[in-house]
Amino acid sequence: MAKEPRPVEALSIWEDARAMLTKARAEGIETAHERLQQQTPHCKFCELGVSCRNCTMGPCKITPKAPRGVCGADADVIVARNFGRFVAGGSAGHSDHGRDLVEVLESIVEGSTSDYRITDEAKLRRIAAELGVTVEDRSTMDIAAELIDIFYADFGSRKKEVAFLCRVPAKRRELWDRLGMTPRGVDREIAEMMHRTHMGCDNDAPNTLIHAARTALADGWAGSMIGTELSDVIFGTPQPSMSHANLAAIKKDKVNILVHGHNPVVSEMILAAAREPALIAEAEAMGAQGINVAGLCCTGNELLMRQGIPMAGNHLMTELAIVTGAVEAVVVDYQCIMPSLVQIAGCYHTLFIDTAQKARFTGAVHFDIHPHNALEQAREIVRMAVQAYARRDASRVQIPGEPVNIMTGFSNEAVIAALGGSLDPLVQAIAAGDIRGAVGIVGCNNPKFQQDSMNVGLAKELIKKDILVLVTGCVTTAAGKAGLLLPEAAEQAGPGLRKICGALGIPPVLHYGSCVDNSRILQLCAALANALGVDISDLPVGASSPEWYSEKAAAIGLYAVASGIYTHLGHPPHILGSQTVTDLAVSGLEDLVGASFFIEPDPVKAALAFDLRIRAKRKALGLGE
Amino acid sequence: MAKEPRPVEALSIWEDARAMLTKARAEGIETAHERLQQQTPHCKFCELGVSCRNCTMGPCKITPKAPRGVCGADADVIVARNFGRFVAGGSAGHSDHGRDLVEVLESIVEGSTSDYRITDEAKLRRIAAELGVTVEDRSTMDIAAELIDIFYADFGSRKKEVAFLCRVPAKRRELWDRLGMTPRGVDREIAEMMHRTHMGCDNDAPNTLIHAARTALADGWAGSMIGTELSDVIFGTPQPSMSHANLAAIKKDKVNILVHGHNPVVSEMILAAAREPALIAEAEAMGAQGINVAGLCCTGNELLMRQGIPMAGNHLMTELAIVTGAVEAVVVDYQCIMPSLVQIAGCYHTLFIDTAQKARFTGAVHFDIHPHNALEQAREIVRMAVQAYARRDASRVQIPGEPVNIMTGFSNEAVIAALGGSLDPLVQAIAAGDIRGAVGIVGCNNPKFQQDSMNVGLAKELIKKDILVLVTGCVTTAAGKAGLLLPEAAEQAGPGLRKICGALGIPPVLHYGSCVDNSRILQLCAALANALGVDISDLPVGASSPEWYSEKAAAIGLYAVASGIYTHLGHPPHILGSQTVTDLAVSGLEDLVGASFFIEPDPVKAALAFDLRIRAKRKALGLGE
Repeated sequence: MAKEPRPVEALSIWEDARAMLTKARAEGIETAHERLQQQTPHCKFCELGVSCRNCTMGPCKITPKAPRGVCGADADVIVARNFGRFVAGGSAGHSDHGRDLVEVLESIVEGSTSDYRITDEAKLRRIAAELGVTVEDRSTMDIAAELIDIFYADFGSRKKEVAFLCRVPAKRRELWDRLGMTPRGVDREIAEMMHRTHMGCDNDAPNTLIHAARTALADGWAGSMIGTELSDVIFGTPQPSMSHANLAAIKKDKVNILVHGHNPVVSEMILAAAREPALIAEAEAMGAQGINVAGLCCTGNELLMRQGIPMAGNHLMTELAIVTGAVEAVVVDYQCIMPSLVQIAGCYHTLFIDTAQKARFTGAVHFDIHPHNALEQAREIVRMAVQAYARRDASRVQIPGEPVNIMTGFSNEAVIAALGGSLDPLVQAIAAGDIRGAVGIVGCNNPKFQQDSMNVGLAKELIKKDILVLVTGCVTTAAGKAGLLLPEAAEQAGPGLRKICGALGIPPVLHYGSCVDNSRILQLCAALANALGVDISDLPVGASSPEWYSEKAAAIGLYAVASGIYTHLGHPPHILGSQTVTDLAVSGLEDLVGASFFIEPDPVKAALAFDLRIRAKRKALGLGE
Repeated sequence: MAKEPRPVEALSIWEDARAMLTKARAEGIETAHERLQQQTPHCKFCELGVSCRNCTMGPCKITPKAPRGVCGADADVIVARNFGRFVAGGSAGHSDHGRDLVEVLESIVEGSTSDYRITDEAKLRRIAAELGVTVEDRSTMDIAAELIDIFYADFGSRKKEVAFLCRVPAKRRELWDRLGMTPRGVDREIAEMMHRTHMGCDNDAPNTLIHAARTALADGWAGSMIGTELSDVIFGTPQPSMSHANLAAIKKDKVNILVHGHNPVVSEMILAAAREPALIAEAEAMGAQGINVAGLCCTGNELLMRQGIPMAGNHLMTELAIVTGAVEAVVVDYQCIMPSLVQIAGCYHTLFIDTAQKARFTGAVHFDIHPHNALEQAREIVRMAVQAYARRDASRVQIPGEPVNIMTGFSNEAVIAALGGSLDPLVQAIAAGDIRGAVGIVGCNNPKFQQDSMNVGLAKELIKKDILVLVTGCVTTAAGKAGLLLPEAAEQAGPGLRKICGALGIPPVLHYGSCVDNSRILQLCAALANALGVDISDLPVGASSPEWYSEKAAAIGLYAVASGIYTHLGHPPHILGSQTVTDLAVSGLEDLVGASFFIEPDPVKAALAFDLRIRAKRKALGLGE
């Protein structure tokens, strides 16, 4: 017997989501919420991490009567292996994304593309100088070529450490060296993680976890950081601007194209094509009032940060956006794109278009987009979307709510500019206690949580306590819809933070970009630590992924902890079947790297834990509470 | 209630195994066979490949009532993702092994080690020339330095194809290019496989499997091939010699050291130390008749091929070897080392010593071995083993059976030398029908099969049909114990093969090395195809892994099929939950790459299938049946 559907109010805190869930049910469309019900209860063995299928002597699972797999691996080894691969999956996602940017830059330098160009030459030169490249009296292209060599080498096997470790405080680098945690090369660490987790290799759970941390650090300080920095170089470094967020980003009278995925490489081209007068004229000829590009997920964040494109929604809105009935095309690159979108698009006139050879979707329209053909292919896609407008069924269109304004574009460069050219005013504000600390809230939605209840709840609690919040990824839309990305939200902050925000005209919750842009937060923490002459673990900072679901979030969490940042998760990864692994995650890592994870499903309690931590760190720095 | 133990006769075809299983039971020692019983029945979802835990919206499993995971992935996508990661694990194992050889060669060239040297300079120069390196008037070290650059680049991101593709027939390379299967870089393909299998990336099962094949090809034609070729360069290219195999390789009156794992880098040093007069004198002072090094698994194969060291056993003998009570130390590097060995060693005086930072075992004695300290560390290990001899309990020693002689050392170089300097006589023998074809039997043991029943049964059936058999990995010991690695075994072959073996004085089953040395078989097939001006898929050849268990075997099988070699498996990987994936594996690949898998648990039927295939291929080549 089918289970009773849960009330839509329980599924999301948002009216736009609830309206579309109601419409989906009326139209017989299944969403992740229904599928979660079908998949509940989950397999306890997989949930605890104690099932292993890494060879065909099994599959095995650890039970009281079968405490070891066929090979002899116990729960500790199996959980550590599974978690190691989980982190490798996440690191690979971010890092392969970073590699794609290196390839685009290479195409620019080689002259094999004219669709992309170096937009922020100053940043390119600044990064190059930071990495020891001679920049005086050299052409930008010449410098770029050398930078490409450095970044490709970061994916290779010959380095002792990846390039951006030059940003890391010396104390932390020494610690990593001592622990065998220094990331040497992105792909190398991923491949070694896969090797270690083969039957009969690494059979010591803590040792496996050390390498998981190394793999995650390769993501944070190389793969992701390269992704962020080169995206800025190619598409421009974000500057504060205004936009809006929620399903009202979809426009009733326009050709609506939603870009979904992570990498700006394709979505920037879609946007460029959609702004071309000829295509706009075609849309108008079809009876539309123009072409509207709105964002989903992280490629939405990338366009929002740099181009001010509105966000239609985060992870759990991706299906619901199509249910509006007003979307002509969903154009995707890769990661976090629910395969169900193909089926849901098929229930409407919506085209589902994939664009990457490494992320094909059965049933999708495929465009093979490369640097040399990107804009031309993008034009074709936009044209298809324009034509699909004719097939839209007006009787099925329902776009809920009104747009909510948001402020976006807080790159570190923008923050430093707002502070008058250096981090000193921020350091002073922290020292004075106006800003008691900072927490990055990042990551996902997960239908196991009422959508955005934790993301928003935690942010609100933290700013009350004069803790500055930085958001990326799917938390962006959550904070945005809650009105927290506006300067006016400073009213909800504690007195110190309110004062600073008022003086600078900024929100108490700053939009810091996409998920790879968590590297911006890493960089900021390192810069603050260096400014204070301390390690990152000495700072009054924290990280949180309250509603996470993705392997990438696990990689992000682990590189945050390994970098010395106390990190909150709303629910645990699949590790609870091993006491050794669990203890290491929630306490043992504290001794090793000066930070650990904590798991807390209640946002008020999570905020209290951060408050305690920040209090202790401030005290240790002699700053008062 | 505990299950009744299965009779030892059902577990293995070997008397030495049965004797030790009986002893283990009497002494209360648990082996893989008991653990398999505890783990049976296996979880059906994991066995079918339809469970997914790649994110924390799940874990999910596909059932008739829940046909999609929370994200919307169906059985096809989930099975393909799981299989893709399975293959990536295997490819990573072999390839990280290959990288370790590059690092040793680099240490030699840099002069940071004197424990290793270039033994086969001629081979180094030959490979270099093959890869387009200028060799005339250059020092070996100079050439080696350039070779190191080439091989490191094979692990990187900048190549369009790995170096040894120069060995592949042109037709096949064109096919791979067309299919998007050309391997670009070892680590890159592994990392991309991990990226593609993250939630919301590659959601088209055939597309995922194409990349799995590409990842496997990167293993076969780069990671593994580099491992084999550089091992030959550093430790010498194998030449035919005699040795022996089975547990009688363990000597009652000697200090017994078993080397286990895969890479010759450590085991060669253990052997060198064990041959030093000072350490032998220490052993004699302890009352032993010297020091005996015997091999297990693939590092055993490496030492057997090059140094004639006897094989104590294959995968399912590794636990049982310790049960003899006469093993002072098991020294391991990585891969296929059952973690249970630590516990079993603990039941005796046996030292369990791990030597690689990437493969630690909880409870083991650890030595951190690197090129600069290898021999010194090896001496220390051998000394510990000598001292352990004093703690041996003679009353618990039981070494079953008598040694069985084997002929080993069939590198392609040795085969060509035996043929008088070229492959022509082999081509002629195939054309004449004396040798109707060739099949490589490779891989593992798996307690799901009566040990070696399939490995030996298939080899015997094939040689009867005038099909030459090449064995590697764990099939070596199986064929050796069955007497098939001796020239006298030609009596069991068909008339044609018998004639050729008699003329050349070689066995009908040739020992071709360790599992990475399957690259020797690839190279031979490519050379034969090139000699005949055809593709590999046109040759009357096949591959089989009858009793496989490891992710590496899956990678090997897939690179064999993708290279055009019809491939038998004794049981399926965890893919049967997807009709799409299964159909592709057992038939669809035939249309794509000219070869496919077939699954057959009966060795007689498997041999008949090979016979049919070879018949058809011979006919197509105009060679008669």
